[in-house]
Amino acid sequence: MARLDPARRRKAVDVARGRAPADLVLTNVRLVNTLTGEIYPAQVAIAAGVVAAVLRPCDGVPAAEVVDGGGRYVVPGLVDSHLHIESTMVLPPAFAAVVVPRGVLTVIADPHEIANVMGTAGVELMAEASRGLPLDVFLQVPSCVPATTLETAGAELEPGLVGALLAREEMLALGEVMDFHAVLAQEGRVAEVLREALRRGAVVEGHAPGLSGRDLAAYVAAGVTSDHTFVTPELAVERLRSGVTLQLQMKSLTPETIRAAAQLARSLNLCLVTDDVMPDDLMTRGHLDHVLRVAVARGLDPVEALRAATLAPARRMGLEDRGAIAPGRLAHLVLTSSLEEFRAEAVFHAGRLVAAAGELTVPLPAWSPPAASLQTVRIPPPPPEAFRVPAPGSAAAVTVRVIEMQPQSTYTAPGTARLGVRSGVVEWESSDLCLAAVFERHGRAGTVGYGFVRGALRQGAVATTWAHDSHNLLVVGRSAAEMAAAARWVVEAGGGMAAVRGGEVLGAVRLPVAGIVSDRPVSEVAAELAQYRRALEALGFVHDSPIMALGVLTLPVSPALKLTDRGLVDVQAGRIVPLIIE
Amino acid sequence: MARLDPARRRKAVDVARGRAPADLVLTNVRLVNTLTGEIYPAQVAIAAGVVAAVLRPCDGVPAAEVVDGGGRYVVPGLVDSHLHIESTMVLPPAFAAVVVPRGVLTVIADPHEIANVMGTAGVELMAEASRGLPLDVFLQVPSCVPATTLETAGAELEPGLVGALLAREEMLALGEVMDFHAVLAQEGRVAEVLREALRRGAVVEGHAPGLSGRDLAAYVAAGVTSDHTFVTPELAVERLRSGVTLQLQMKSLTPETIRAAAQLARSLNLCLVTDDVMPDDLMTRGHLDHVLRVAVARGLDPVEALRAATLAPARRMGLEDRGAIAPGRLAHLVLTSSLEEFRAEAVFHAGRLVAAAGELTVPLPAWSPPAASLQTVRIPPPPPEAFRVPAPGSAAAVTVRVIEMQPQSTYTAPGTARLGVRSGVVEWESSDLCLAAVFERHGRAGTVGYGFVRGALRQGAVATTWAHDSHNLLVVGRSAAEMAAAARWVVEAGGGMAAVRGGEVLGAVRLPVAGIVSDRPVSEVAAELAQYRRALEALGFVHDSPIMALGVLTLPVSPALKLTDRGLVDVQAGRIVPLIIE
Repeated sequence: MARLDPARRRKAVDVARGRAPADLVLTNVRLVNTLTGEIYPAQVAIAAGVVAAVLRPCDGVPAAEVVDGGGRYVVPGLVDSHLHIESTMVLPPAFAAVVVPRGVLTVIADPHEIANVMGTAGVELMAEASRGLPLDVFLQVPSCVPATTLETAGAELEPGLVGALLAREEMLALGEVMDFHAVLAQEGRVAEVLREALRRGAVVEGHAPGLSGRDLAAYVAAGVTSDHTFVTPELAVERLRSGVTLQLQMKSLTPETIRAAAQLARSLNLCLVTDDVMPDDLMTRGHLDHVLRVAVARGLDPVEALRAATLAPARRMGLEDRGAIAPGRLAHLVLTSSLEEFRAEAVFHAGRLVAAAGELTVPLPAWSPPAASLQTVRIPPPPPEAFRVPAPGSAAAVTVRVIEMQPQSTYTAPGTARLGVRSGVVEWESSDLCLAAVFERHGRAGTVGYGFVRGALRQGAVATTWAHDSHNLLVVGRSAAEMAAAARWVVEAGGGMAAVRGGEVLGAVRLPVAGIVSDRPVSEVAAELAQYRRALEALGFVHDSPIMALGVLTLPVSPALKLTDRGLVDVQAGRIVPLIIE
Repeated sequence: MARLDPARRRKAVDVARGRAPADLVLTNVRLVNTLTGEIYPAQVAIAAGVVAAVLRPCDGVPAAEVVDGGGRYVVPGLVDSHLHIESTMVLPPAFAAVVVPRGVLTVIADPHEIANVMGTAGVELMAEASRGLPLDVFLQVPSCVPATTLETAGAELEPGLVGALLAREEMLALGEVMDFHAVLAQEGRVAEVLREALRRGAVVEGHAPGLSGRDLAAYVAAGVTSDHTFVTPELAVERLRSGVTLQLQMKSLTPETIRAAAQLARSLNLCLVTDDVMPDDLMTRGHLDHVLRVAVARGLDPVEALRAATLAPARRMGLEDRGAIAPGRLAHLVLTSSLEEFRAEAVFHAGRLVAAAGELTVPLPAWSPPAASLQTVRIPPPPPEAFRVPAPGSAAAVTVRVIEMQPQSTYTAPGTARLGVRSGVVEWESSDLCLAAVFERHGRAGTVGYGFVRGALRQGAVATTWAHDSHNLLVVGRSAAEMAAAARWVVEAGGGMAAVRGGEVLGAVRLPVAGIVSDRPVSEVAAELAQYRRALEALGFVHDSPIMALGVLTLPVSPALKLTDRGLVDVQAGRIVPLIIE
């Protein structure tokens, strides 16, 4: 990845002083200065990948190459301070191939999905896969492996390991601390990890859905300094006032929240982030560039939006070598004709043209995932009998807890239902509910958790190992036979997602790397995913964000009732609750 | 000094959650939020010296102690990111006794004056003298020991030593890099020191008087990121655009510069700093609180001014634990009735009341300087013969270079004069010029530099070891006899300043610690200094800032013609030039 170093600086100083010709001069551009909020005509002289000087349009400057910007805006390369590359279901090279042409040149990614499967080997995999790309991939050290004590992940990153990773140059922060119960309790693995990070002076990323008042104060006092979860205007204001960097992602970009945040974000405390972007959304809408466009369309001043997507995230992450176009900063530059309809028309990574007109102009290094990363589903396909839920005692019916899905949110609501019992087994197939089962698949605990879901499929079954954050095997369906069939497909593929009706696989996505990521280009994964989305629709699952809704059904830090391999989790209470109430 | 630590955090979290009573609750205050720019009624709950939570006025909160703010504003303790404590001519405890009651609770001081005399022992002295104070004294590691190769300082801080010091927790930055020629040349001690600091990721303080255009770009590209020297509106704009943190001190606080800077300083890139404050100014006007008042009086929005004196400098120096009143930040708080006429009416350091109504309310630890620091003038008093300037050849007159003092600036202008020669000696005593002589006094080189000065004394002589930055013995006068007398007083005092007319010492300041600092309270030094000022006036020296004008006559990085123990320095050219032209 590109960083400033003494050799680059030396060359830049010489060029600034006029002692050597620039490698490249970008002329006839309108410079968007994220430091001052100004826009003015300029020339940018580049040496050794660094901005050596910003000159007036009339200044003469000797250069090996001159590029005429055609009067377009030049803005800093976009910086995404909170995302999980794994959410795009591809490896960093394939990810770079799509985001670099969109103007994203720096990401600070939390690899906690793959780390939850493979531990430090997963973090290493992401670091190695990122080498030599025209995209600077910095990493956050996952704090949440596992995310909570209420699930079984594939690995555990102990405080000492987290500390050792944080000492590495490309590791810029502690990844989102999601278990706020553990933070506030100040005991156990998460609290120790947090202390280790703070001792090292690391930036600590947060995840504080809905947290407010004294709980928020306690969370912040504990050392967490950002939040990227959904916020209302009120929650946004409270976060900014508390010294929390507000990281707005798509779902928080309402005109009201933007208005509230923009008024108060006068301390580089507002960032735009992507968090999780699906491969098909990535292909069709874009990445941080899309968030930027939406933010502007919904009322954020274009220059403020750019600052929130460049300087503010760079500063938060201690990357003083980027985020603005100024002497001694990396020449990560994007040319665009419009700040409102931001499209990256030419992209320079450390002064090198790497993309134009939406296409890469440079080859990417070849990289293949190690064999061990392709063998992470360590259970046999669960048979139909695995989807029987025993009922205790001799009652003819039981009251069960139900996860109520919300068609417009990935949060769920808690509910109940009355189900019949025959021969000691709950008769759920004849109800309008789905059964959900989570099988620990890392070869560690062998545990299975069961729950009932309302508002998911009307028929058939789905199975997925892309199930936050432990990525165990989640199976949801209307019949044991179809659930077993869907699960079999996923297990045999080494990971992925499958939607089944009767004996037929209607749609499926192969994700063989750690069971959550493909080793193919985004376009291929997106095509499979599109087919899978249609299959979900065919099975009667209507949701604004169906993949994510299923994928976080297992996330025990996202409200309100979730399911892990250990059982049903009451997220607010932070504990496992029984499936059968009476 | 107060820092956040796990124990403080733990207590703050418990109090925020309501699991333990607060140590102190500040009620009935209007909180000035430097993060958002807002002012609103609040209560501040404090635990273990940390803000645990900011609560609404109506919230109930159990506390060991309640302080009613009487509806006053509560603002963060002031943070001064660029100053030299030695300029106040007192040691840190005496300095704290004056600035803490004025609301200054954090300083990041560059001890380069004392380091130029004593080397690392001087840095250690400042660190040790600062322990246990209700003022957090962080240090910058002086980059300029010596400031240039054009003078002889008492020590040299080599790159390795600078690196070792930067590794220490209380050392937050590389002190101002003053020799821009050395920076741009990219070779020699200064360039190596800079590289060492950048390698360690240290913040690098600048000193770039008048630097502009490509030279400024080169200086910034080399890694320097602030400037506190005098700026015009144009220079201010250029610095902000270039990613330089603008540190405005008194002399830059014109309404025009404030207006220009305020429009563009949207990235925490504007700080208010004191740099050098004389002891009498410190007593009568104040410190950073005075700069704050002047900035507001001249047009800076009061909340922006506060941000520039709290959050912005704290952020620049990586002190995320202060600069705002928010959970998990140190309870460094100041109560004041007016933001326009800012006066610190009550001052809390880490939650403890340390000053009220302009007076300390806590005792300061006793501290005495080590014996070695009191024996740093290592030359005998120069005799009258030392003030003879030989003329080469046999001409009856010579043309000499003249340092033209400017009555309203510490910058000088270059000039010339024609002086007679008798018996091979320049006849300056009968002219209207002063002779200036700089004697290396550290017992190292034994060198003497001579120059002529116009616009200084009309009669008598002055001598001083308070002569930036090498603090050699500067003697300026109208006769050799009076110069010898003034010099004798200073040498025998172990350092200080003396003004002599005929055989009489009209005024003098004893500065026995390193020859530049007193071990007495500010009030006593200020009284001596006032008498010395009157003596300068009596000798016909009329200047807006007479002490500083003399003290930087020896500073070879401040325009335009200066004098060191090596000779006359053409600052622009960065080299020694001959005294006698022809």
